[in-house]
Order: sequence, then structure tokens, then C-alpha cells
Amino acid sequence: MEFVAFDKPRACRDIASIITQVQAGQLKDGDAVTVQGSLHRIKEMSGFAFVNVRGARHVFQCIWHDDSSQGSIKDYAVEDCVVINGSIVAEERSRLGFDIRIESMEKLSSAAEQLPVEISNDRKIDKLQLSTLLDHRVVTLRNPKVRAAMRIADGVMHAFRTHLRSEGFVEFVPPKLVQAGAEGGAALFEVDFFGDKAYLTQSPQMHKQIMVGSVNKAYCVAPAFRGEKHSTNRHLCEYESLDFEMGYIDSFQDLMAVECRLFTHMLRFLNEEYAPELEMFLGQGNRLPEITQYPQIKFSEAKRLYADAHNKPAEDLADLSPDEEKWLGEHFLKEHNAPIVFITHYPSKKRPFYAMDDPTDTRVTLSFDCLMYGQEVTTGGQRIHDYHEQVAKMQARGMDIADFGDYLAMHKYGMPPHGGLALGMERVVQKLLGLDNIRRATAFPRDRERLSP
Amino acid sequence: MEFVAFDKPRACRDIASIITQVQAGQLKDGDAVTVQGSLHRIKEMSGFAFVNVRGARHVFQCIWHDDSSQGSIKDYAVEDCVVINGSIVAEERSRLGFDIRIESMEKLSSAAEQLPVEISNDRKIDKLQLSTLLDHRVVTLRNPKVRAAMRIADGVMHAFRTHLRSEGFVEFVPPKLVQAGAEGGAALFEVDFFGDKAYLTQSPQMHKQIMVGSVNKAYCVAPAFRGEKHSTNRHLCEYESLDFEMGYIDSFQDLMAVECRLFTHMLRFLNEEYAPELEMFLGQGNRLPEITQYPQIKFSEAKRLYADAHNKPAEDLADLSPDEEKWLGEHFLKEHNAPIVFITHYPSKKRPFYAMDDPTDTRVTLSFDCLMYGQEVTTGGQRIHDYHEQVAKMQARGMDIADFGDYLAMHKYGMPPHGGLALGMERVVQKLLGLDNIRRATAFPRDRERLSP
Repeated sequence: MEFVAFDKPRACRDIASIITQVQAGQLKDGDAVTVQGSLHRIKEMSGFAFVNVRGARHVFQCIWHDDSSQGSIKDYAVEDCVVINGSIVAEERSRLGFDIRIESMEKLSSAAEQLPVEISNDRKIDKLQLSTLLDHRVVTLRNPKVRAAMRIADGVMHAFRTHLRSEGFVEFVPPKLVQAGAEGGAALFEVDFFGDKAYLTQSPQMHKQIMVGSVNKAYCVAPAFRGEKHSTNRHLCEYESLDFEMGYIDSFQDLMAVECRLFTHMLRFLNEEYAPELEMFLGQGNRLPEITQYPQIKFSEAKRLYADAHNKPAEDLADLSPDEEKWLGEHFLKEHNAPIVFITHYPSKKRPFYAMDDPTDTRVTLSFDCLMYGQEVTTGGQRIHDYHEQVAKMQARGMDIADFGDYLAMHKYGMPPHGGLALGMERVVQKLLGLDNIRRATAFPRDRERLSP
Repeated sequence: MEFVAFDKPRACRDIASIITQVQAGQLKDGDAVTVQGSLHRIKEMSGFAFVNVRGARHVFQCIWHDDSSQGSIKDYAVEDCVVINGSIVAEERSRLGFDIRIESMEKLSSAAEQLPVEISNDRKIDKLQLSTLLDHRVVTLRNPKVRAAMRIADGVMHAFRTHLRSEGFVEFVPPKLVQAGAEGGAALFEVDFFGDKAYLTQSPQMHKQIMVGSVNKAYCVAPAFRGEKHSTNRHLCEYESLDFEMGYIDSFQDLMAVECRLFTHMLRFLNEEYAPELEMFLGQGNRLPEITQYPQIKFSEAKRLYADAHNKPAEDLADLSPDEEKWLGEHFLKEHNAPIVFITHYPSKKRPFYAMDDPTDTRVTLSFDCLMYGQEVTTGGQRIHDYHEQVAKMQARGMDIADFGDYLAMHKYGMPPHGGLALGMERVVQKLLGLDNIRRATAFPRDRERLSP
């Protein structure tokens, strides 16, 4: 028996740590360093070689000198994992302001075959067919720009959690296996549950409302599943839903206010912590916008705005089309410098049975969608909290309340006025980075055609 | 069109905010307050009534006076949601040091029926049959002790994430729908995926290893599914797996060291932030232990230790029985004041195909389990990173490598020495709080008999 030695983490050999030390003046030209990484690109020149090495976050340039580096550069290949002993060489032309002169290079492991796609060139990766990019996900995730999107996804989830926690919300784990879908039967995945039928949840709607009765303000970051039959650039069969629900609201405006504070925090946080990643998508020196105001417009007015601008009568009064959303996004960006817009008071007939109708006009609900750069990323609203009101609305829709025993139990035993919203994590990443397809916003996308890797 | 008003969150009317202000001396005896909550218990006396109100985290006592409070207490019932206007009354006998004298009480909503189980008495809730507790989960989650466990679960997940982030790990989202199980075919849930077969993931093993190739240190907090046929007090069909995986390790000792630092952080954090919740389980004034050392012992030595203590030969040399784990937990707690123990070097034949064998004795692996108070909460270890070594081990086990194309792709194109572990979130909550059944450690447990609420 002995004790685990855990007090001091080993000195970090990632380039990030060396960059920090160089910037702090703790490491200078000529100082010895030990650094680890994957060989990203090797360019042999006469008497020396440029060796680009990929650390956990940064690619950095090392110089191999045939006359002073130990061994032969020909013994190394792309994707070998190495530990380099070398020294700092100040170099203005280098992106980091320095290169590393290689004295020796220990090979920890080596690739058994050449890469099936080139991953050291971001432009080539951008031009790859999406299916090729995803078929080779095991290696394309190693590309610096591809993995930058994964880091942004981490940042979006982290900002969501830390902001909600700062406002007193409690995280809970919703179940993924359920007896029936939250929104009815369409597009549900069926699971063989010990010979019985279960389904994969489409939303933690019921469970987050139940948690309001428990801890008042609840949130979750959890998968939701939709059996989308049609392939679009904004749907996944499995996505990460950022949900919250809160009690004792005065109005559904309280919910939008939380979301505005969240977005303001999230964009600032990403700008502060993820500058290198953001620049890969937004261009050098660019950041996400500082948002100071969030417009809101009623659904009926948004419809009229679009129709007037296009000199035609408003069609399909029950929902916004993707074209209308896109135009509204452009309109508010141009007119108010606002990339995020709330559309409120959606028609009752298009909202779920639990949506609270506007008491001043029961044809519409106290609900909203949030558009980010012209695409819906959030649906939210106030829910019915009174038992009798909820039963009446369900019966008016021809629903059998016997099927909703658990759902109605919370209303039966008292619920405060409450509401919440759901934010699609991958959609937020997609819109913030300007990705053409939502599949680029997650490491392992799932659609009708894709179950691997 | 108008703008969302979001700058200032509304003044918090939860009792937690009032407690903070009283403790800071900003609110004093006689000061007016407005506070919201659910009526938890009403005890009518002669001329007055004790009204216990349940806020988001605390239950607090209010006093209704028939001669000065507006209206009649008989118009209110348990689980009504109210906003109380009243004043602070210093009261030494009250747990918070003060009561609230009710001037008026606005009813925001009311329960339609009486509660099916009493939730205002923690002892009665503790004595409820587990099935009754879970059948009425919608309301039993409102019980202060039940919801305290949910807050601890939040704290455990938060501590896991913040600690790993502080060590440079990146969170990613693993897929839940997969083509095959990580550990083979047993106990997999099958999903109807557009007429084809898919499965619910048992572990993000492959995906977290792939992420090592991308960002080097990766973690996830995600559901894992096991079709457990037998009912035990420590298994769920759906549990939250806290996973991490890291590259460029020197030894599997690096992995245990991360877990030790994580546990040290986690227990401190819970003690600092969750004292009221911990006391409900550990007793008044009690906290979780400050752990300063973590013993590790080889599997074969642990077997011998148990056998010697029981004067019998070691049986089943391939695994530890629950009895052995329990005894080892008690032994190390007694001998070394250590609630957490690592058992290392498990036999190769009982570990998965990706476990790295000990080069000094290939019958055992560079792997470990972690026991917390005598129950396994973690399995981890170093993985094979070399392609040819991995292929050889799979072939020696009679596996068809053609079935593992995605898995082997990462090795084929180069992987650093790496390893990781998985921590069962609900098990950690169960063991820290001393719960008799893991179902008490999650809001919505799933087992063979239970798919609701």
C-alpha cells in the first residue's frame, strides 16, 4: 500500500504554457524549453526543416537543423507524437513572436499510415465536402479550425451554466428515456425497453417544470432527440438543449430578460477567452459584437413588416418561414445593429398545450422565439400554472387528460406562475461563427444518414 | 417594436436574499419585507397561526395574527403559492434567528387537491417506501431533504466541471446514438433509427479518446445507458457519467492524481457552498471529510488483505466482490482515515480490449478502480495508443478488427500515450450523503420498472 502522489501536477509541456511564460517575460530568447505535441507539417529545406507542431490549442513552428539536431528528420512523420527539447528563438515573422530550435525530439508514438485527408491546411479543410469531413471525423477533428469550433461549443455551454448559476438556478439531470413525447407523437425515436416501448425525449419540458416546484429556478444541459426525416442545414437528430425554467415570474418578459443577460455575458466571455478561435472564423482582429439592446416585436407586426417590405399580403399567419426569419434578422441588424431579436405573441394554435394565452387576446400566447442572425435559436414562454385552466385547454384540443397524469400532477398540487425557454446549443455556435451547416458545430453529428463515428 | 428591458433583474423576493440581508445587518427587527414561497405547513393556534413557507432553498416560519393579518388564514391551504408582505421579527428560537410577521398574503395560485403524501416532514419522507417516494416524485421533490440531494448533485457536477476546466480540459458532447456498444453487446438498448438499428451509448469511451487527438484533454458530463436486468441499490438504467481522458501522460498514476485533486476540490466546495444541505444528511454541524491522502493498493494485494483478514483463501481472482469492496472501504477508513481508496493493476482478462497491459507483468493492466466508502465509483486506466499493439490485443481476443474501423482509425493516424476514467455522478452523491439507494441521488431515476415521471 502506498499513497497517490497528487499534490503537484507535472509541469505543463503544452505550448500554451510556454506562450504564457514568454508573454510574461519568464522565458526569453535562447532559454531551454521542453514541449510536446503532434507533428502537424514537416517542410524539409536545404540543411534544415520547418516542423509545425500541434499543441492542445496552438500550432507552433519549430526549426530542425541537420547539423545540430540529434538524429535525422527523415525518421519522423506527420502525426507522430513527440516531446521536443529545444530553445526559444525570437522571430518577428512567426505568429507567436518566437520559434523553437530543436535540439532533440523524442518520439512517443507514431502513425501507422498516412492521413486520408490533409488536416494541416484550414482552407483545404473548409473546401472539403461535408460528408468527407464527417466520414473522417476521427482525424478532421484534429484540424485547428475544426477543433476551434469545438472549443467555442465548450465556451457556449460554460457561459450558459455560469450565468444561470449566478442568477440562482440549479442544474438538474432530466431523463432521456420517457413514456411519451413532450410535444406529441411526431418524430419520436422508439426504444426497446426490456420488451416494452420507451421513447427518447424530445425536450425536458415536463421535467423542468416539475423542478420549478422543487427549487424554483432550474436548468439543464442535456440531449434532445428528433427523428427529422428531411435533411436541412439547421437540424440534427440529436442536439444539446440548453433549457431553463423559473417560477414566480411577473411576466414572460422576465424570461427574455434572463436570456438577454445571458447573451451579453456569453458574447463577452467568448471574446475574452476565445480570441484565437474566433479569429479563425471571423477574421483576424475580429470579435463577436457587444450587444447593448435586444429588439422585441410582436409576431403579427413582424409578419406585416415583411409583407409590407415585399409588397405582398402576409401568408400563413400561424408561423414564420425560414425566409421571413432571415429577412427579419437582416432588417434588425441593419436598422438597429441588433443580431438578436425576439418575436413575441405567437398564435395559440401553433404553440403547445401548455403555453399561456394572452389574457388580453387569447388568440395569441405569452410566448416568444429568439432569432440570432435570422435563425431561430430559442423558443420560450410563460406556461399555464393553474390546474383547471390547463385541463380546460387540453380538453379544448381534444386531448385525453388521463394520458397526462404526471404532467397534471404538478398543477394539481400547486405551481407558481412560471415559464422558461430552450436554446439549441449547436445553433448558437453555428450562428455565432457563421457556419453554413449545423453539423460543423458539434464533434459527432447525428442525422438520418450518420451514426458514426 | 420596443427593446427588452433586461439591465436590472427584479429585486429577489426569495427568503435566501432576506437571510443574506439580515446576516449583513441590512435588515433588522421590525423592517418591512416582501417574500415569496409555497405554503409548506399551516398550524392554527388560538388567535394566530404558524405558517411555514418553502422558498427555493430554505423553509422559514411566518406568523399569522388573526387580529392584524389581512383576511382569514382559512382561505389558504398547503401548496398555495403566495407573496407575503410582512416584517422581520427577531426570534432566537427560530432556526434562522427571525420569523416574519404577516401583514398580508397574496395568493398567486392554489393547489386543486390535497397532497397525496405529506412532504413537510423529513422523517416521514425518509420512512416512505422508496416506490411511493418515486411514484409521487412530482411532489416529493418539493420536500426539503429530497431536493437537498438534488442540489448536492448540482454541486458535484459543478465541481467536476470547474476543476477539470482549471486543469485545461475541454468539454465536448459525445453522441448518445451509436452503432454498437463500447464494451460489447450486453445490456444494450436498441433504438429504431428510421427503420435501422441503433443503440444507446454505454460509455463515451471511443469518443473521448478521439477528442484526445483533437484537444488533448477532454471531458464530458453525459448520460450512459445500461439495460440492467437485476435491481440493485447501486445501478440505474440511465446514469450521468462524468468522464475525462487526457494525452501525454507519463503513467496511469497521472490519472489518479487528477482524480485526487478533483475530489479534494469537490469536497471542499461542497462543504463551503452546501452546508445546509449536507447537515440534513450528515447531522447538524457535520461536514464532508477533508481528505489529505488517498491510498492505492494493487488488486492482488487487496485480495490477499481481505483473505488474510477472513482466514480463507482468495476466491475469484479476477474481480472484487461487493463484500470485498465494502470491507476494503471500512479497512482503509479505519486504518488510514481514508474514505477514498484506489485499487490498481486489475487482471487483464477482466478489463476491456483497450486497457494497456503492465509491461512488467502482462497478466495485469495499468488500470484502477476507485472505491468511495467501500463502493466502486470510478473505473479508469491507461489505454493502448499504438495501432499494432491494439490490433494484436483485439485479435488475441478473437475480435474482428473490421468491426472497429472508427475506433482503430485514431490509433492508425497517431495517438499520444493517454488514459482516462469515468465517475458515476449518482454513485458519488449516494456515497457522500450515505443514501441507502442510488435512486435517491437523482430526480428522475430509471430502472426496469420505472419510466416515469
